[in-house]
Amino acid sequence: MEFELIERFRQRTPVYPCVRLGIGDDAAILDLSGQHGVVTVDVLMDGVDFVLSEIPPEKAGRKALAVNLSDLAAMAASPKACLVGMVLPRKGGERIAEKVYDGILGLAREYQVGVAGGDTNSWDGPLVLSVTAIGTPPPFGGIRRRGAKPGDRIVVTGEFGGSSLGKHLDFEPRVWEAIYLYRAYEIHAGIDVSDGLAADLAHILVESQCGAVIRAEKVPISMAALDLAKASRKGGKALDRALHDGEDFELILAVPPAETERMLQDQPLSVPLTDIGEFVAEKGLWLQTGEKRTVLEPKGFVHLFA
Amino acid sequence: MEFELIERFRQRTPVYPCVRLGIGDDAAILDLSGQHGVVTVDVLMDGVDFVLSEIPPEKAGRKALAVNLSDLAAMAASPKACLVGMVLPRKGGERIAEKVYDGILGLAREYQVGVAGGDTNSWDGPLVLSVTAIGTPPPFGGIRRRGAKPGDRIVVTGEFGGSSLGKHLDFEPRVWEAIYLYRAYEIHAGIDVSDGLAADLAHILVESQCGAVIRAEKVPISMAALDLAKASRKGGKALDRALHDGEDFELILAVPPAETERMLQDQPLSVPLTDIGEFVAEKGLWLQTGEKRTVLEPKGFVHLFA
Repeated sequence: MEFELIERFRQRTPVYPCVRLGIGDDAAILDLSGQHGVVTVDVLMDGVDFVLSEIPPEKAGRKALAVNLSDLAAMAASPKACLVGMVLPRKGGERIAEKVYDGILGLAREYQVGVAGGDTNSWDGPLVLSVTAIGTPPPFGGIRRRGAKPGDRIVVTGEFGGSSLGKHLDFEPRVWEAIYLYRAYEIHAGIDVSDGLAADLAHILVESQCGAVIRAEKVPISMAALDLAKASRKGGKALDRALHDGEDFELILAVPPAETERMLQDQPLSVPLTDIGEFVAEKGLWLQTGEKRTVLEPKGFVHLFA
Repeated sequence: MEFELIERFRQRTPVYPCVRLGIGDDAAILDLSGQHGVVTVDVLMDGVDFVLSEIPPEKAGRKALAVNLSDLAAMAASPKACLVGMVLPRKGGERIAEKVYDGILGLAREYQVGVAGGDTNSWDGPLVLSVTAIGTPPPFGGIRRRGAKPGDRIVVTGEFGGSSLGKHLDFEPRVWEAIYLYRAYEIHAGIDVSDGLAADLAHILVESQCGAVIRAEKVPISMAALDLAKASRKGGKALDRALHDGEDFELILAVPPAETERMLQDQPLSVPLTDIGEFVAEKGLWLQTGEKRTVLEPKGFVHLFA
């Protein structure tokens, strides 16, 4: 333990009421107001989730927290606190740590998330960041992957594809959006998009034991996906990017038809809500282009091992 | 995400009532019975905290959870759940992951800890394990580093030094011991020994704003420390090992004198309790050998950066 570094972290860490005991002891005590705690962890690595030599370290820190907040958003949970585990390169690690922490604190402040503790280490390898986020669920338990019903519409926030051009570092986790939508509308199931629109929709299908049809012409394609598709000089690729690129950190929601209509008329968010298709009884995932329906392989799945 | 791997993890994971929603969704929901949640994280790296080529991967997994349980023990908290973050070598990572998880589940079962979720990744680097443990504090808040008072005795569990010979992988976190002692005796402060007996005692001193004197002849020296000292053929080293080696994962407690007397007479644990000195008003840390008092430098501090 580098005591001075941790002490500096502590001094710079805002205090929130829910963190009864924060950085500087053996563990953190959280007051979750008698509610269930919602906890999630993500581990990000230099060279995989970001390239440290190409970005300010603040962005790596911000992303490490943001992906966790996106996980909480996918449950409509309210983020409360986080723990920050760092494995720092021995050379230059201290400077990196400070900047990473800046990035974490900046986003934490936006969402009133207390940094409740962590673990700081160094080694001869690349930067690894492990953030654990803790939140509280909304009344009635929040949004899960299970619960989509045949007939439900597939409603998404924002646009998809080309996240590697920048959004994967700068995205705004849909925390307030999810909490608002869950409060105002009936939502049967949901997930955030990290693996890809198709792949993460497939996660809902597995848990909900149903199928889905995506309408090709309805998928909101980002400018970044269009730019990348144009750069590669191949037609029709922008849609593929929107379906498979991943790291959009938008929400996919299963919403009953009448609620969807109300939601789309209201458009209550600053980010657009789009109906991109429907859940169906038959298991499987299809892409419908005009009248033609083809099987959609969720390519977003990353195979971990050689 | 390697869906099959996670699915296998899920199938092998015992279900406990406190994990309302476990592996397989975006985050875990914990029922902490209306109590405060206690959370802690530790990140362990191949080549630093264990050498994967020299041990069964199960031991790395066991250690990754055990160090977190030791942190909870240092608060007298009851462990309830954990999240497991893994960064696996791309080559052979799947086999390693299974064995690591075996080690985690084995220890988790002993302490009825639910694995509530996690994050599984791979890369071309070495194994990194990030475990987050969540528990509940005992009534009246539990043990902290702050609170030691001049006159309090320094009471320790077990023996110290030479942990690298094996104990650092096989140690039993002092979970039940801490909960029992906190219930049965007045304890002012405490910590678990990861950095070293002297270094971790120094953490209590910083937080409690006081000093301490360790009586050299009272320090319980482990057989491993004696063996290592003998092997190095230098006299007097076994005590140094006990003071500075670290990773003993025993408890250091600040206990009022009358309570200490009662505690040592009772010897209520299966592991010995020893009074190794006293807290004093003057800030500093000393080693007393007979009548001679020398300043004790807490060498256990590891400097993180080159």
